[in-house]
Amino acid sequence: MSNATFYKGSKSGRIQKADTQLKKLEGDFVRLRITASGVCGTDLHYRTQPMALGHEGVGIVEETGPAVKHLQKGDRVGWGYVHDTCGECEHCLTGMDTFCWSRAMYGEADLDQGSFGTGAVWREAFLFKVPDSIADEHAAPLQCGGATVFGALEIHNVKSTDRVGIIGVGGLGHLAIQFASKKGCDVVVFSGTESKKDEAMELGASSFYAMKDKKPGDTDIGRPLDALIVTASALPDWSLYIPLLNRGAKIFPLSVAEGDFAIPHMQMMSNGLVIQNSLVAPRLVHQRMLEFAAHHGIKPMVEKFEMSEKGIEEAMEKLDAGKLRYRAVLLNKQ
Amino acid sequence: MSNATFYKGSKSGRIQKADTQLKKLEGDFVRLRITASGVCGTDLHYRTQPMALGHEGVGIVEETGPAVKHLQKGDRVGWGYVHDTCGECEHCLTGMDTFCWSRAMYGEADLDQGSFGTGAVWREAFLFKVPDSIADEHAAPLQCGGATVFGALEIHNVKSTDRVGIIGVGGLGHLAIQFASKKGCDVVVFSGTESKKDEAMELGASSFYAMKDKKPGDTDIGRPLDALIVTASALPDWSLYIPLLNRGAKIFPLSVAEGDFAIPHMQMMSNGLVIQNSLVAPRLVHQRMLEFAAHHGIKPMVEKFEMSEKGIEEAMEKLDAGKLRYRAVLLNKQ
Repeated sequence: MSNATFYKGSKSGRIQKADTQLKKLEGDFVRLRITASGVCGTDLHYRTQPMALGHEGVGIVEETGPAVKHLQKGDRVGWGYVHDTCGECEHCLTGMDTFCWSRAMYGEADLDQGSFGTGAVWREAFLFKVPDSIADEHAAPLQCGGATVFGALEIHNVKSTDRVGIIGVGGLGHLAIQFASKKGCDVVVFSGTESKKDEAMELGASSFYAMKDKKPGDTDIGRPLDALIVTASALPDWSLYIPLLNRGAKIFPLSVAEGDFAIPHMQMMSNGLVIQNSLVAPRLVHQRMLEFAAHHGIKPMVEKFEMSEKGIEEAMEKLDAGKLRYRAVLLNKQ
Repeated sequence: MSNATFYKGSKSGRIQKADTQLKKLEGDFVRLRITASGVCGTDLHYRTQPMALGHEGVGIVEETGPAVKHLQKGDRVGWGYVHDTCGECEHCLTGMDTFCWSRAMYGEADLDQGSFGTGAVWREAFLFKVPDSIADEHAAPLQCGGATVFGALEIHNVKSTDRVGIIGVGGLGHLAIQFASKKGCDVVVFSGTESKKDEAMELGASSFYAMKDKKPGDTDIGRPLDALIVTASALPDWSLYIPLLNRGAKIFPLSVAEGDFAIPHMQMMSNGLVIQNSLVAPRLVHQRMLEFAAHHGIKPMVEKFEMSEKGIEEAMEKLDAGKLRYRAVLLNKQ
């Protein structure tokens, strides 16, 4: 048995260090030394829960259980939101394992270990080989942020000839711009002000609109959007965006939000809009996302923090204030 | 030139008779003698507008324009919500003509003629041959009600192995039960009370739940629903229905409603739900719907009224009060 340190949430929101004995390596379990972790909006959400935080992990295989088939000591792997599934339900059988009725998911299961820490034990079947060309600090945010935006495009048939709108240039948005643009789409980015315009264009946007203080009808984007990826933390003012959508367009609400999702009924209906929810990515799509990122040189833009109570709290504060450009990554000392 | 009588809405909501000269038969226009019309919720909606009402028409071809190719005098045809499209935009070119950017649609275009009347002139390209086995009074409600429920199932890939929930047994709901059941689906019907249970089961439901006064968790339907067709005039209490849905299930909101469409954000997202809007049916799907109805003996259950101010007002009042079983049809005297 090995020990590991984890960083947990607490009622006050302070991050707490906890030493834990890792579980025994039975079956296809693998023990990792964690090198890096991304910090995601859902980690903020669970900050006040007494659970080990983090679900954008990257680490090195240290030891393998008796039923492990492919991984070996020294391999570099990532993992994300889903830790286990049944393998037998209709969703598992159709490759949509993120929908598995028995899914073990961050925030709901395995609350004793997360990617904010020094080591962990996970099933081989839910670990993903990281291509050599992707550095640890870039691989980490792909495990949830990258999987979420790539999954939305890939699973729900956004085509390379589609015009794709992206609301918000942040942790998810700056990855969505890259993935959609490398998939061949014409990418139109919407942000509050012009402050992120240059970066958005460099990341692959073909046009950029600052929407603060805009009124319906102010914005003429030309050809309407076939897909709209909403990554901003609040729902947009639909009166600004529905007129920019194609009939039959898909809206992807990717940000976690409390309360109701609300949209004008008649406009939604008479334009045949689709509200398409999408949840990270099933395993095959996750692996393809990593390969696609490596093939196209897609890299998160990151700010690095120390894997410690202090580093985590600093990263979370900056994330919460909307000041990160664009994803925080926690790094263990080598 | 011919004359025809139409029945129009008015500010007070009274139905007004108006004699009109029909337009000249140029191009592929066809002059019809109207035999029957269904009465739909959207007709109620436009009752206070000074426009000719009705969009579930059936009639006999009386005269054909110079470019008419297939129809001839004496043919029996129906028409619905869409009167014309451009034939050239991306939606027309992909068979989704209901999304055409220049669509001429009930309530927006051709306000001078409707199916509440004695005759009309429409483009051949937007008229549908009625199979011989379907009587006028049954063919009429299929032109919008039938097209709407069949279109939702057909265009958005509801499979015969899917479990389909239908909320509301009314004009749309009683047709949805029949179409879904004849498409091979396991159909689960939800209504307020038990009063429509026997009819719903006869129409093809395999199970029926009275939901009035039910609380979340009260209802165990077994295998979750892959599709939920909402035909009730108000949005349902989602806390009763989301627990009955499969992950990735499609919700079809088919009823016209003012204000916002609202649904709990996190439940919608974590279950990967799809809000799939669907608007009547493109032309090919409309024609297939009529053939499918004929093949399977699908018939609306109708109450007949006279095509007159009095008949229309009686039908509308009964529709508005929710007392129709299940669709009103206006008939011209033969």
